[in-house]
Amino acid sequence: MDYATALVRPGIPGRTAAFGIDLGGTKIAAGLVDAAGTVLAAASVPTPATAGARAVLDAVATLVAELSATEAAANLHIIGLGLGAAGVIDPATARVLSATDTIARWAGTDLAAELYTRTNLPVRAVNDVHAHGLGEAWCGAAAGKANVLLLAVGTGVGGSHLLHGVPQTGAHHVGGHMGHFASPLATGVPCSCGRTGHLEAIAAGPGIHRNYLRLGGDPSVPDTRELTARAYAGDRLALAALRTGALAAGIAAGSLANILDPEAIVLSGGMSGAGTLWWDGVREGFATEAIDPLAHLELLPAALGNDAALIGAAGLFLAPTDR
Amino acid sequence: MDYATALVRPGIPGRTAAFGIDLGGTKIAAGLVDAAGTVLAAASVPTPATAGARAVLDAVATLVAELSATEAAANLHIIGLGLGAAGVIDPATARVLSATDTIARWAGTDLAAELYTRTNLPVRAVNDVHAHGLGEAWCGAAAGKANVLLLAVGTGVGGSHLLHGVPQTGAHHVGGHMGHFASPLATGVPCSCGRTGHLEAIAAGPGIHRNYLRLGGDPSVPDTRELTARAYAGDRLALAALRTGALAAGIAAGSLANILDPEAIVLSGGMSGAGTLWWDGVREGFATEAIDPLAHLELLPAALGNDAALIGAAGLFLAPTDR
Repeated sequence: MDYATALVRPGIPGRTAAFGIDLGGTKIAAGLVDAAGTVLAAASVPTPATAGARAVLDAVATLVAELSATEAAANLHIIGLGLGAAGVIDPATARVLSATDTIARWAGTDLAAELYTRTNLPVRAVNDVHAHGLGEAWCGAAAGKANVLLLAVGTGVGGSHLLHGVPQTGAHHVGGHMGHFASPLATGVPCSCGRTGHLEAIAAGPGIHRNYLRLGGDPSVPDTRELTARAYAGDRLALAALRTGALAAGIAAGSLANILDPEAIVLSGGMSGAGTLWWDGVREGFATEAIDPLAHLELLPAALGNDAALIGAAGLFLAPTDR
Repeated sequence: MDYATALVRPGIPGRTAAFGIDLGGTKIAAGLVDAAGTVLAAASVPTPATAGARAVLDAVATLVAELSATEAAANLHIIGLGLGAAGVIDPATARVLSATDTIARWAGTDLAAELYTRTNLPVRAVNDVHAHGLGEAWCGAAAGKANVLLLAVGTGVGGSHLLHGVPQTGAHHVGGHMGHFASPLATGVPCSCGRTGHLEAIAAGPGIHRNYLRLGGDPSVPDTRELTARAYAGDRLALAALRTGALAAGIAAGSLANILDPEAIVLSGGMSGAGTLWWDGVREGFATEAIDPLAHLELLPAALGNDAALIGAAGLFLAPTDR
C-alpha cells in the first residue's frame, strides 16, 4: 500500500496526546494529535475497502505503528486511539452497528476489541461526520462553544449537533442525518436514500450537477467543479443550479437553528469551498428561515480543512466535555 | 377572579411534592404534584393578561396559597414552585427573556425573585411547551425514555427535545421552534412568524382551516373543529385540508427523527385529538421521511392531556435528570 507520512512537528516530551483516525471509504488518514488539537504527525493510505474489515483494521494499525515511530511521538504520553469511521457507530462500545457495503464486512465490526488487540491502546469511535463536528467544535471554527451545529455539504449532506463537546448521536446512533430532511426546493427530486425531496438531493454537489442537467445544462460539463467555474463565468443555468443548492442549504441551516438553537453554525464540505456565489445563497436562505432571535447567528466556514475528522477523533480522548 | 379548585386526592404525609404552574395567555393552571407525578390538587384561573405581569404573578401566588390550604397539602414536604410559562424563558435564571404582548409587560420579568417574594418557595421555570414535553417524558407517553421528541400541533406548532429529562432549550433558549421550519407542503403560505412556508402555516389548526378556505371550502365553516367533523362526514375539501396538515406534521416528525434520533416521538395538541384521519396522515408522512433504522419508531399520543405542562413544571423539581 502507498503510505504517505508527513512529519509536522515534534511533540513536547511528557505531553498528553492521542491518535486520531479519519476512516472513510476511499482513504484512511491518521494523525498524532496533542492536547491542544495540534497535529504533530500525519499519515494516510487508501482504504483497502474491497479487502474487507480485517484488512482495513490492519491498515489502521500499520499507520499507528508508523506514527509511533516518528520523532513526533518520542516521549509523548499517548492515551488512546480515536476513530471517526464510516457507518453507524455506537460511541459507547465503538462497534459498527450498520454500514453500507463500501467497506466489505464492515457492519458488526468491534472496533474497540480489534484495534486494542492490534495497538494495545484504548479505542473510542464515532461516525466520521460527528468526528468532523467534534474537531470544529473543539479547536476549529466553533472552538469553545457549548452548542454547535455542523452542516457538511459535499458529495452528500451530513451534520452533527454537539452539546458541551459531545456529538449527539441519538438513541440509535443515526442522529445527524441532516441531508435527509424535507427541503421545499427538492420536492419530487430522488435522494440517495431512496426517498424523494430531501436536502441532499438538491444541495449536495452531485445534486447540484443533476439539477443543472435537468434545467437543460450542457451535458459535457462533467462535475460540480466545472459547473461552479461556469457559474462564475456567468452561465445562467449553472448559476441557477448552484444558487438553488445554496439556498436549500441555507434554508436547512435556518430551520435547524430554529429547532436546535445553536451558538454557532459551521458549514463545511466541498460546496463550502465554492466561494461567494454559494455563501451568498446560503446566507439568503438562512435569512428567510431563522426566527428573529437567531437572525444574527454567524454562519462560519470550517477552519480545520481535511484534518477536522482526525482531530475530532483524537478529541474523543482529548477534548474537554463539560457535561 | 373565578378560581376553580378541584381536590384530587390527599397526599401522603412527609412525601416530597412541588407546585406546577402552566401559565398561558388565557389561563393559569396550578397543581400540587407528588414525586410520582400524580396531581394531588389542582386549581385554575383566567390569566389577567391585560392587567400585566404583576397581576399575573399575584394570581399565581393566590393559586399556590389556595392549594397550600387544601387537605392534599397537609404534611407534604413541598420543595419548590415550577412554572411552564409563555415566552422565551431562561431556565438557569427563571427570567422571561422575551415575549409577545399577550401578557402586558411580561418580557423581563424575574419569575424567581417575584414568586419567591410572594410564596417563599424556590422557583424554576421553562417555556410552557418544554414543560409539556417534560411532563410527557417524565410520567406520560414517553415515561422513562432518555431521548424524547414532543411535537405539539394545536393552534400553533411547537416542540421540545428532551435528553435525560432535560428540555434542550438551546443557546438562546428559543430551541424547539418546530413549527417554524420549512415544510414542502407549505411553500408560499404565510406563517404567524412573518415568514412563509413553515410547518405551522399548514399543519396548525388555523392553518388547516385557512387551507380549507383557500381550496374553496364553505366559508360558513367557522373553525377546525367543524372542519374536522365535515371531513369525517366525507367533505372532500375538508378531508384534503386535514390530510395535508397531517401529512405535513408527519413529514416534520420524520425529518426531526432523522436529525435528532429520538427513542420516542410524542404528538400532542388539539390536532392529535382529531382521530384516525389525522393520525393516518401523520403516520403516512412519517413513513415517507424517516430513514430505515427509524422506520419502526412509534408515534405516541400524549398521555397527560391538559395536565402535561403543570406536571412537567413540577417535574423541574421532581423528575430525575440522569445527566
